[in-house]
Amino acid sequence: MQLKKKPVTGMKDILPKEMEIRNYVLGVMKETYRRFGFVSMETPCVEHLENLNSKQGGENEKLIFKILKRGEKLKMDEAKEENDLVDCGLRYDLTVPLCRYYANHSAELPSPFKALQTGNVWRADRPQRGRYRQFMQCDIDVIGEASCIAEIDLILATSAFLGEINFKKFTIRINDRRILKAMAAYSGFAPESFDTVFIILDKMDKIGIEGVAAELEKEGFDRANIATYLNLFQNIEPTAEGIRYLKKELEGCLEPEVADNLENIIYQVEKAKQADFGLVFDPTLVRGMSYYTGPIFEITMDEFGGSVGGGGRYDEMIGKFTGQSTPACGFSIGFERIVMLLLEHDFSVPRIYGKRAYLVDKNITKEALESLMSKVMIERSKGMEISVDTMKKNKKFQKEQLAAEGYSEIVEIFAD
Amino acid sequence: MQLKKKPVTGMKDILPKEMEIRNYVLGVMKETYRRFGFVSMETPCVEHLENLNSKQGGENEKLIFKILKRGEKLKMDEAKEENDLVDCGLRYDLTVPLCRYYANHSAELPSPFKALQTGNVWRADRPQRGRYRQFMQCDIDVIGEASCIAEIDLILATSAFLGEINFKKFTIRINDRRILKAMAAYSGFAPESFDTVFIILDKMDKIGIEGVAAELEKEGFDRANIATYLNLFQNIEPTAEGIRYLKKELEGCLEPEVADNLENIIYQVEKAKQADFGLVFDPTLVRGMSYYTGPIFEITMDEFGGSVGGGGRYDEMIGKFTGQSTPACGFSIGFERIVMLLLEHDFSVPRIYGKRAYLVDKNITKEALESLMSKVMIERSKGMEISVDTMKKNKKFQKEQLAAEGYSEIVEIFAD
Repeated sequence: MQLKKKPVTGMKDILPKEMEIRNYVLGVMKETYRRFGFVSMETPCVEHLENLNSKQGGENEKLIFKILKRGEKLKMDEAKEENDLVDCGLRYDLTVPLCRYYANHSAELPSPFKALQTGNVWRADRPQRGRYRQFMQCDIDVIGEASCIAEIDLILATSAFLGEINFKKFTIRINDRRILKAMAAYSGFAPESFDTVFIILDKMDKIGIEGVAAELEKEGFDRANIATYLNLFQNIEPTAEGIRYLKKELEGCLEPEVADNLENIIYQVEKAKQADFGLVFDPTLVRGMSYYTGPIFEITMDEFGGSVGGGGRYDEMIGKFTGQSTPACGFSIGFERIVMLLLEHDFSVPRIYGKRAYLVDKNITKEALESLMSKVMIERSKGMEISVDTMKKNKKFQKEQLAAEGYSEIVEIFAD
Repeated sequence: MQLKKKPVTGMKDILPKEMEIRNYVLGVMKETYRRFGFVSMETPCVEHLENLNSKQGGENEKLIFKILKRGEKLKMDEAKEENDLVDCGLRYDLTVPLCRYYANHSAELPSPFKALQTGNVWRADRPQRGRYRQFMQCDIDVIGEASCIAEIDLILATSAFLGEINFKKFTIRINDRRILKAMAAYSGFAPESFDTVFIILDKMDKIGIEGVAAELEKEGFDRANIATYLNLFQNIEPTAEGIRYLKKELEGCLEPEVADNLENIIYQVEKAKQADFGLVFDPTLVRGMSYYTGPIFEITMDEFGGSVGGGGRYDEMIGKFTGQSTPACGFSIGFERIVMLLLEHDFSVPRIYGKRAYLVDKNITKEALESLMSKVMIERSKGMEISVDTMKKNKKFQKEQLAAEGYSEIVEIFAD
């Protein structure tokens, strides 16, 4: 009997070379966020279907891997619909489990709770190059901090982490959902059409301002409103200057504190940041999830424009589940994309210790092996990476293979 | 709408205190095995049902969480049995995925392949105290090393790891499946009854030699055979001496090389070991899985007798799947039990850097916050763990909570 050799559709085996990079990135991440006061937490990969279907997951709710009921609970004959057959599913993100976790344990957790959660999530997406159905997510959240210290610390920590793994020239774009809304309100759009407007605005970087205008018109919005709206964007500097401009321009539609708060975040991050990145006010930044209530942010690599992380403030989400209003703000790191970029750039994990291999004659005496092993154990206890292998007939190939794995020293040990 | 707050039945949320210990143990594990030349690998948590049901999983195959087919593939009306509804499942161990992985990638992997795989597995067991339906497994395997260097290195590495996390007074019991079989053959049992005999022998530590005798009789085995068999055990020293005794006694039933090999493993480990543990030859050690072909071992904590790891050689398993005979030997670490023991002993993770919290007045000026944040960023870049939090009305409680989290220094920052 033979096993199916390939992994299940859309999932992947991870080879040692990639694992070394993944472990390195995770290690740097844990170490960096530790310095900012973050602690680790974990939730099960399996979650209640009721929670997964709580409407916080957006489109992801259609992509759930559902788990069959077991034993007597599975009643195939009586089942009328899919949901009669299943009782739980694999999580598609870490946010829903975080909310459940916080609701379940808030009395045992510090306040604010600064949480780092890393773990796999699953989405039954159409498989495509570079996108898998199981992938690692890394979320950092501050729960219980209402002030902009949360945003400042999240941005500083996340940029410090990217700096530590030697990412340079990235840009953090920042906006505020309340500014987004104020701009739409100012332009005459009705609140119930905001989501439609924002979905179109979100395409600005792809289709340009004319494209946005055309799509808004196609949706039947008033031409005057569209003109007012898009005209606003023309005059905004991507800096604190732009925020101050909007604070004045949107008077009556925007609480001045919202603009001051965003300006302060930019100011403090610019002053305290240590990594090499730009911080830009981007009034076209939307972030898909409707649960955001305040500042939102996204990190893009200048080189290829793709996002390697993003997040924002979601002050109302936790309260929805716990009944107690709790401010929250978080970041999601694009772990898989970061690993992919490092692999593409042939990144080598910094190595402190050397690698040495001993090739041992298969007829080695008891005494010779004893003397080798005690030497090897001392070298290992000093941190060196020592492999002891039986010498093969094709010694040349064996040595080449070891060299390719980074064994810079290869020592042959003969029978006695 | 409220979330279900509790995790799904039988699974658990992990609080920061336990996470700190888990991360520490995993870190020490990765670092220790690295020194022995092990590399990390990963397989998806979701596996083909055909592979999970390949008869290598024993009883675990009854405990699979199965995943419902999706979209058009799910044909509820036509489904006759459970397996028509599902197309994959959550892995219940790391061995089946390892074999698939090796079969899929052997050309890209070094030989021998020294693999460290850590990850969650799932078993739909009856929930009980301390046993969960999702738990972490840590497997270390050497694939492609036929000599006892594999066993020696696995035992040395695993005991070094336990020593590093400060486990003392543990015992590694060792046996060989071929000695088990030779003892049974010598006593007159038929090969087809070996498994039944071994299942009963495995209870020796619980029911004693009389209990084993009674159960063997109950199974209808010949009294003379039982007497010969149990008499053998009476005369075996738990050392190399015992192995030499059996080598002589079982002449004709046991290849002498098997005894020499086991004696050499014990000799080499005793000479090279650095951690504080005993190595014992235990002819009653069975290890459940029938795929073992050579030496088998188990680590027990003297204190409470429970196992914290075990493994053995399984030279025929990989070949079954790949068609190419490949020697293999591995260890499974009882990660969850190790973490439980550390928690029970109030283990504190060694801390290099101090923890300091700044409590910030909510009306802090822009300038005061700026000067604080730049100071904080320097402290963080030195490795210190710094939390910056808004000062609460109930400052006394806030400080107590921070102290409980290990913040030994708490600094108050006023408005300007």
